[in-house]
Amino acid sequence: MAKMKAAVFVEPGRIELDEKPVPDVGPLDALIRVTTTTICGTDVHILKGEYPVKPGLTIGHEPVGVIEKLGSAVTGFSEGQRVIAGAITPSGHSNACQCGQAAQDGHGTRHGWKPMGGWRFGNTIDGCQAEYVLVPDAMGNLAPVPDGLSDEQVLMCPDIMSTGFAGAESGGIRIGDVVAVFAQGPIGLCATAGAKLMGASTIIAVDRLPERLAMSKRLGADHVVDFSASDPVEEIMRLTDGRGVDVAIEALGTQSTFEACLRVLRPGGTLSSLGVYSSDLKIPLDAFAAGLGDHRIITTLCPGGKERMRRLMSMIASGRVDLGAMVTHRYRLDDIQDAYELFSNQRDGVFKVAITP
Amino acid sequence: MAKMKAAVFVEPGRIELDEKPVPDVGPLDALIRVTTTTICGTDVHILKGEYPVKPGLTIGHEPVGVIEKLGSAVTGFSEGQRVIAGAITPSGHSNACQCGQAAQDGHGTRHGWKPMGGWRFGNTIDGCQAEYVLVPDAMGNLAPVPDGLSDEQVLMCPDIMSTGFAGAESGGIRIGDVVAVFAQGPIGLCATAGAKLMGASTIIAVDRLPERLAMSKRLGADHVVDFSASDPVEEIMRLTDGRGVDVAIEALGTQSTFEACLRVLRPGGTLSSLGVYSSDLKIPLDAFAAGLGDHRIITTLCPGGKERMRRLMSMIASGRVDLGAMVTHRYRLDDIQDAYELFSNQRDGVFKVAITP
Amino acid sequence: MAKMKAAVFVEPGRIELDEKPVPDVGPLDALIRVTTTTICGTDVHILKGEYPVKPGLTIGHEPVGVIEKLGSAVTGFSEGQRVIAGAITPSGHSNACQCGQAAQDGHGTRHGWKPMGGWRFGNTIDGCQAEYVLVPDAMGNLAPVPDGLSDEQVLMCPDIMSTGFAGAESGGIRIGDVVAVFAQGPIGLCATAGAKLMGASTIIAVDRLPERLAMSKRLGADHVVDFSASDPVEEIMRLTDGRGVDVAIEALGTQSTFEACLRVLRPGGTLSSLGVYSSDLKIPLDAFAAGLGDHRIITTLCPGGKERMRRLMSMIASGRVDLGAMVTHRYRLDDIQDAYELFSNQRDGVFKVAITP
Amino acid sequence: MAKMKAAVFVEPGRIELDEKPVPDVGPLDALIRVTTTTICGTDVHILKGEYPVKPGLTIGHEPVGVIEKLGSAVTGFSEGQRVIAGAITPSGHSNACQCGQAAQDGHGTRHGWKPMGGWRFGNTIDGCQAEYVLVPDAMGNLAPVPDGLSDEQVLMCPDIMSTGFAGAESGGIRIGDVVAVFAQGPIGLCATAGAKLMGASTIIAVDRLPERLAMSKRLGADHVVDFSASDPVEEIMRLTDGRGVDVAIEALGTQSTFEACLRVLRPGGTLSSLGVYSSDLKIPLDAFAAGLGDHRIITTLCPGGKERMRRLMSMIASGRVDLGAMVTHRYRLDDIQDAYELFSNQRDGVFKVAITP
Repeated sequence: MAKMKAAVFVEPGRIELDEKPVPDVGPLDALIRVTTTTICGTDVHILKGEYPVKPGLTIGHEPVGVIEKLGSAVTGFSEGQRVIAGAITPSGHSNACQCGQAAQDGHGTRHGWKPMGGWRFGNTIDGCQAEYVLVPDAMGNLAPVPDGLSDEQVLMCPDIMSTGFAGAESGGIRIGDVVAVFAQGPIGLCATAGAKLMGASTIIAVDRLPERLAMSKRLGADHVVDFSASDPVEEIMRLTDGRGVDVAIEALGTQSTFEACLRVLRPGGTLSSLGVYSSDLKIPLDAFAAGLGDHRIITTLCPGGKERMRRLMSMIASGRVDLGAMVTHRYRLDDIQDAYELFSNQRDGVFKVAITP
Repeated sequence: MAKMKAAVFVEPGRIELDEKPVPDVGPLDALIRVTTTTICGTDVHILKGEYPVKPGLTIGHEPVGVIEKLGSAVTGFSEGQRVIAGAITPSGHSNACQCGQAAQDGHGTRHGWKPMGGWRFGNTIDGCQAEYVLVPDAMGNLAPVPDGLSDEQVLMCPDIMSTGFAGAESGGIRIGDVVAVFAQGPIGLCATAGAKLMGASTIIAVDRLPERLAMSKRLGADHVVDFSASDPVEEIMRLTDGRGVDVAIEALGTQSTFEACLRVLRPGGTLSSLGVYSSDLKIPLDAFAAGLGDHRIITTLCPGGKERMRRLMSMIASGRVDLGAMVTHRYRLDDIQDAYELFSNQRDGVFKVAITP
Repeated sequence: MAKMKAAVFVEPGRIELDEKPVPDVGPLDALIRVTTTTICGTDVHILKGEYPVKPGLTIGHEPVGVIEKLGSAVTGFSEGQRVIAGAITPSGHSNACQCGQAAQDGHGTRHGWKPMGGWRFGNTIDGCQAEYVLVPDAMGNLAPVPDGLSDEQVLMCPDIMSTGFAGAESGGIRIGDVVAVFAQGPIGLCATAGAKLMGASTIIAVDRLPERLAMSKRLGADHVVDFSASDPVEEIMRLTDGRGVDVAIEALGTQSTFEACLRVLRPGGTLSSLGVYSSDLKIPLDAFAAGLGDHRIITTLCPGGKERMRRLMSMIASGRVDLGAMVTHRYRLDDIQDAYELFSNQRDGVFKVAITP
Repeated sequence: MAKMKAAVFVEPGRIELDEKPVPDVGPLDALIRVTTTTICGTDVHILKGEYPVKPGLTIGHEPVGVIEKLGSAVTGFSEGQRVIAGAITPSGHSNACQCGQAAQDGHGTRHGWKPMGGWRFGNTIDGCQAEYVLVPDAMGNLAPVPDGLSDEQVLMCPDIMSTGFAGAESGGIRIGDVVAVFAQGPIGLCATAGAKLMGASTIIAVDRLPERLAMSKRLGADHVVDFSASDPVEEIMRLTDGRGVDVAIEALGTQSTFEACLRVLRPGGTLSSLGVYSSDLKIPLDAFAAGLGDHRIITTLCPGGKERMRRLMSMIASGRVDLGAMVTHRYRLDDIQDAYELFSNQRDGVFKVAITP
């Protein structure tokens, strides 16, 4: 039986490169030879034991690769094609999928919905920080890479570009909106880029790190606020002449950013939340107009599926957005533990790392 | 100068019938001779000093009456017409109004939005628990009562019918949805009726009082849950076979109902919040899927304006809903303090009182 | 090899009962033993040769039955379960499906969209006017029938209830809308019922046959207009006091009904079109306000999939609508040619026939 | 009584500069001293007698100017402020306005809707090709020009930018959509710019004139198709590899462009129509999938009001779009007949003219 290298979760604090069998290909699967992948903030949560997964699981949910083998029932693709798959791999047949909520895909459940059920790679099935990854329900999840795009150009599509853009989309951004984006990590930066692409007239980006604020300007921010230098709520209210913003995007997952979002919203505004929270949240009565402010709070998990991936790659192909600059560091799969060390400590100005098996 | 009787706020704990001048009619106003009005839960908050208004203000925001005098610039109406006006009286010219958010109408502000700015009657201008009330921006706010409808039949339109229905509308209820409505006071009952009218297949109503649960069945509830007899979250999960509801409507304004709404929502569900809260709210991490459940939390203030009132009255005229049974007690304006006493203590099975000057 | 009876298209004018092998069950299929099915207007188009299909194809797209055998890869269902499947059977993995447009499902195409590609039964694969039918992509298409519902109660779900309700849904009907529905055949009747369920305050139904007008009143129409007795445009303008309707639903497929819909729409109104047209359509300049009337014309093909079926059956189970009365005639599969004869000539006050193998 | 110069419609073929009294200012009006205005295609229709207006009416609906005098009831503005007003001037109090359909504003009608009723300037009241113009319902229609923007920079906001952008908005363009825009006159060019701002990945612009195709590339088109050199339907199908477009925008008002839009739409696509048609339209059966293609045809009249103007100017102020280059010719009001001669014959590569009193 052929073997492959894979980064597996061993126990809290330990993700190690291991040898595993190359997986068998079921009728609906596709086996992908991974050519590039990356590490996500969620993987760091897994590493730290903050998000529990089964020991022995291969981590990673952002694959770029080449079709090695197609399942017997898979049509419409051919071996050797360059493809990506989304972090979320919809089954296509759950009730959630048929309601357009594939991220909450309840395939195999009694009811058809399951919280985060669409997130399978590196969560409930083996992921892609490995030489090979098995893509389930391949006909709905393989998205061919347009000619002329490099691995690194499409590396953000499976997760952070899809998630960040979805933050803008769930905010319902309209032409002429004023938008604040709290935190300019990879997802916040993509939310900033998404807000620009949807027609926001003014985008205010909040972070502390100079390289992130600089990158956010490059991707669309009109104003940047260093929250370590001034109170971001005050600063945003000043920048909007007291009016507040139409849409506030939370891209960190803390009480303080969530609350700041509410405080800068105009009445009738929308808080679009992308962050993964780690404790209960508080909604302050005053910022919420006691429940009478016509506010909307909307949370969004990364949209997946081949149509989403096709659309995102088409934006890159046509030059609408260039996220390639977010790849700041490159590692071989053999050195993935070094990559985790760098990325989880946010050292050396890292945005995203490219891992090549 | 002609005088009229009016129920005015004196100080916390005291709303008294007083004599005031019949107001002058500005160019855009209409003077309405009130024929029937009612008391709202919000008025009780005012009475108790929980929602501060200026001493001397006439209370009340649910007028049914007859046009006594039209302002010089008002066209399209005639004196003697029977009309209602919504609790929210949009100016029609603020930025908020032009965005379809008239309840946050910022007329007169620098920016065009103001939290709850569309609520003027009995809040920022004299209300309608009086013999006469001045309707501002009359051309946008006077809604003629269709022939054949009595005062009591349309008495719920200005506030609770509009608010309760909006709870269903903001929930985005679709044909076949399962909906839970927490609290079956007048607004919750209207939310129940609204959910039925929008096509919910199953409506679960939660309250404690038998007369409310009975009324909710009459207005559309399929199941009623007495939260004093069983845990409503468990009961709703049982009734939905573990799936949860598509839309949960909060119609009370407490942490426990807000939290229960989140706990019964399926992934991807919508919490439509109508309650007026009196303290910070907590969002429990687990019920919120750590921010990854594609949840929506939407708050809604009563929609107003003549078009809204026209639509609501048309529903009553065509027999789609009958809220007349919610008028359980009747008082003369002279006895309004008795009405307050009854209503604020929820005595004698009261739903709503009709006050006739 | 086991044999079964099936109604097959032979040539224009001839649908005959034939013997065919019971189909083999592929890994994703389910074999259903049909217990009840029906004939649709589209089947009559096929019979007449107006809609071409391959000779030898089994006709019919509205199956109620029992799971006889599940494909090897199908989970979540068990043999012996009572189920229905929609007329549209989404693959779940096309780009169209992932955009929520499963009726235009382009599985197997290069691009992921195909006009009407989701309609497979009795169109591109064998249908259900037979003893057995093979349901493709069974995990997304089998919908268990709730306990207590008879075959005839759910017989309208696969097509006409789904289509008619979708006419109301695509119209974006809101509480208080005035709606006109042109033609009260089975689909128009379901559109009438759907308009009522979505909160229309006033529904005006147009047809000529007294039994249809009577049934439309039973299902929700407030006014009926016999177009053979008076001009329906004039009559609707009279009934709406000159204002016109918010939403007009076309449920026949002719120039005259399409045009009448436009003529009764208020500015800013929506024409929701369900009819299958057989010639080019004309949009009259005046009725279209020269293109400046903020009109919407929306066409809708029957939504399918198990989630849609689940929702529709839940409406029947909770008593929101009862379409059982639309089954006016019953035939054995052996006599299906008689059923076609009756149905295609609209004899004997027929609405829908039930066919039992 | 003060006099002013104004371009008035005399009879078909004649718009002449005339002297008229400076209008009196009613309580809700504002008198604007016009500093820059322009000529619209619609004005040419008026000139030619194709769109009838009352002889003696001042033409023009795109004003940039300075507040000269405010009506007695107007608050929130001050004399001397630089402002624009939209071509559509919502009353704010009609039923149509309260439904968000101010362009069909039925102020003064019995029912609250009137086709194109929101378009008053140069249609039902005196327009702005004059030294002064009276803005009705000024509180909802005066939009202050942000500091630093010139007259010519905001000159497109009142009509063509609002209309063209609305073509993209009504198309519901989403990130990753492929969009075709038929005709690249001023409105089509703005639709192209709007499609880019909303996130279209690929925009295909169709016209014949090289200067228009060049401008469309500058404003966002990825591909341009010269319909005099090749069949645009074939060309677009080729460019989209046979798939068709998600959204097709019609910006001319002819059968051939309308029909081409339908023919390039993928199933489930949206035709967003902006053109003013001059004859009945034909919908070809095949391009319409016989009514079963889940198509949407949406027409849109220019959105107006101060909030719309504020949003559009904010896009210019933040540099998102620069339409200043569309002003190709400049005239004094005294020479407006020359401007009409140039513009109506589309001579000399004209896009838009600036007229300064």
